[in-house]
Amino acid sequence: MRDEEFIRGRVPMTKSEVRAVSISKLEPTEGDIVYDIGAGTGSVAVEMALTTRCGHVYAVEYKKEACELIRRNREHFHVNNLTVVEGEAPGVLEGIPGPDKVFLGGSKGKLREILDWIWNKNPGTRVVVNAAALETLAAVSAYLREHRMEAEIVCVQVARARRLGEYHLMEGQNPVYIVTIEPPEPGTEG
Amino acid sequence: MRDEEFIRGRVPMTKSEVRAVSISKLEPTEGDIVYDIGAGTGSVAVEMALTTRCGHVYAVEYKKEACELIRRNREHFHVNNLTVVEGEAPGVLEGIPGPDKVFLGGSKGKLREILDWIWNKNPGTRVVVNAAALETLAAVSAYLREHRMEAEIVCVQVARARRLGEYHLMEGQNPVYIVTIEPPEPGTEG
Amino acid sequence: MRDEEFIRGRVPMTKSEVRAVSISKLEPTEGDIVYDIGAGTGSVAVEMALTTRCGHVYAVEYKKEACELIRRNREHFHVNNLTVVEGEAPGVLEGIPGPDKVFLGGSKGKLREILDWIWNKNPGTRVVVNAAALETLAAVSAYLREHRMEAEIVCVQVARARRLGEYHLMEGQNPVYIVTIEPPEPGTEG
Amino acid sequence: MRDEEFIRGRVPMTKSEVRAVSISKLEPTEGDIVYDIGAGTGSVAVEMALTTRCGHVYAVEYKKEACELIRRNREHFHVNNLTVVEGEAPGVLEGIPGPDKVFLGGSKGKLREILDWIWNKNPGTRVVVNAAALETLAAVSAYLREHRMEAEIVCVQVARARRLGEYHLMEGQNPVYIVTIEPPEPGTEG
Repeated sequence: MRDEEFIRGRVPMTKSEVRAVSISKLEPTEGDIVYDIGAGTGSVAVEMALTTRCGHVYAVEYKKEACELIRRNREHFHVNNLTVVEGEAPGVLEGIPGPDKVFLGGSKGKLREILDWIWNKNPGTRVVVNAAALETLAAVSAYLREHRMEAEIVCVQVARARRLGEYHLMEGQNPVYIVTIEPPEPGTEG
Repeated sequence: MRDEEFIRGRVPMTKSEVRAVSISKLEPTEGDIVYDIGAGTGSVAVEMALTTRCGHVYAVEYKKEACELIRRNREHFHVNNLTVVEGEAPGVLEGIPGPDKVFLGGSKGKLREILDWIWNKNPGTRVVVNAAALETLAAVSAYLREHRMEAEIVCVQVARARRLGEYHLMEGQNPVYIVTIEPPEPGTEG
Repeated sequence: MRDEEFIRGRVPMTKSEVRAVSISKLEPTEGDIVYDIGAGTGSVAVEMALTTRCGHVYAVEYKKEACELIRRNREHFHVNNLTVVEGEAPGVLEGIPGPDKVFLGGSKGKLREILDWIWNKNPGTRVVVNAAALETLAAVSAYLREHRMEAEIVCVQVARARRLGEYHLMEGQNPVYIVTIEPPEPGTEG
Repeated sequence: MRDEEFIRGRVPMTKSEVRAVSISKLEPTEGDIVYDIGAGTGSVAVEMALTTRCGHVYAVEYKKEACELIRRNREHFHVNNLTVVEGEAPGVLEGIPGPDKVFLGGSKGKLREILDWIWNKNPGTRVVVNAAALETLAAVSAYLREHRMEAEIVCVQVARARRLGEYHLMEGQNPVYIVTIEPPEPGTEG
């Protein structure tokens, strides 16, 4: 889905290409319960709800302004399988159905607690984390190392052409690390 | 879908992240007839057939070895809405239903003729071109300029972490230009 | 040299890392006469004059405002081997000593004429072109093809960390193509 | 300097563009004593010795095979201001003159000890670290945070064109993080 389709505010929004790659790695399938934690504008949540076969998306976000934007985007796109969960993870996750897939766009410094909660609730949850900050990437890497978990780590850097008269100037977007964590089958080594 | 899932040969394959972005930009919708021209291993064709709501995918490819790989991948993934069209575009396109969306992964030097054929057949076709070579990008840009058509041009560069002992070394993949051409509504200016 | 050291205006400036790579590829040596055509702010010209062993740098620029900036930067850094040549290339090049090395940052649509002039004046001139626009890259490629010349083409994409509270967010800069053309020895094939 | 000019073995070598940017950020000036720690093939050491105004370069490397390569490259390029220091940092640094500038290409897991040693020996040393692994980047970031030091962090990703028949295919090189640490003036806050 294109960035221009979304209603935006002063909330940062995951860009189209990074959304596409992240959702592709999360691979929500038939009937999945999917979380978008740190949903921001709701672009990832809305795109997953509309374009994948998942069952229901829970967009978790603590900022009031962002939650309003998610609701407006939900209406704008006539999405009927998305619930806005206003509050901070992991606490606010207690009240919703357990996840099959989780997209982690923001963690407000509670990455560790959130990951612990997720795999405690459902050890088989696939998690995709987007890290735009080096500290977030380092925190995820540290967590994986401590728990002897493996993950796929890619960095996606996009440049977009901007028209200037007769020319197309390539403009660089911010690189984002996309970490995909497939927890091991129960009973096997980490 | 992950690259490791596909049966591969000596045929170059579009990588997972570039596939995800390309398919996202093509946005095949309910019932669409979709072409993958220069289908190669068939990774884009198979992923579109399996993961989007499109009606049917025609994977067009002139190399015998590649067509075999596409058929094997089609079986491997139990795809029932994909037809392999062995032969060279645009000639071989005469025998199949007109397209709603076209992904152009390879053009064997006939980019111009293929684009002409597509928009002659259905002027409203959205086309996404992948260009790994500078000459292909230049040829697409020249075509757009001559036909007064606008397009979105992005370049996607991915790096992937490779485990080496205790370390994760980032390895660069080849950058790919993804050009999305949305032809104008009939009766409006180009 | 760091970008913050230069006096800037509304003139676009080649960034530090792209400057470093471009100058490295141009490799001005002892006593070389070096041109910076389309010198803009003069950052490449000044950095070559100050940090390499070249003899003299001619900063060629047609915009009055940019020429003023180059002169101010020349004074600011106490550069004594840089001449500002105000006017349009290739015409204005007639009045200065022939080049050993040429850096081409901008060509105002006269890339072909400028390259012809350079190699007519001194067939052994090494030229490094910076292309931020796809059209410039295509034009250089076309020129090389027609003249059966080979070149090294690299694309440099830089991301820079910006501090935001406790975090370092990586911000993407615009990718730049750096084309290095080493003309063949006289009497050999192109 | 071009990668093809160097004598190489099975030792990884910092690529031309990353060398150029790293040396540009280190900015060795007149008479500087410069270290290249983890010198590998010696490409950075040799390029600094040959192309900058520095006084003397100490190439520190513990692998015997790599030290041999550095010596061969030193001879090949007729470098007379480069000393090979065979052994592990920081221990082996005790026997050489204190540094003005340090390039850190490899640290064999002793990054912390090496940085401590450098700034204990000369608090004003500018240090440039190349990190190809995420763990190295995380270790440097952690060190900076603990010592309340600021640094410039850039990531340089290069793609290079490879000729294939009539086409130039862009091939991605591995991204490298370049961290430049300018320690504060004595007596000022960190």
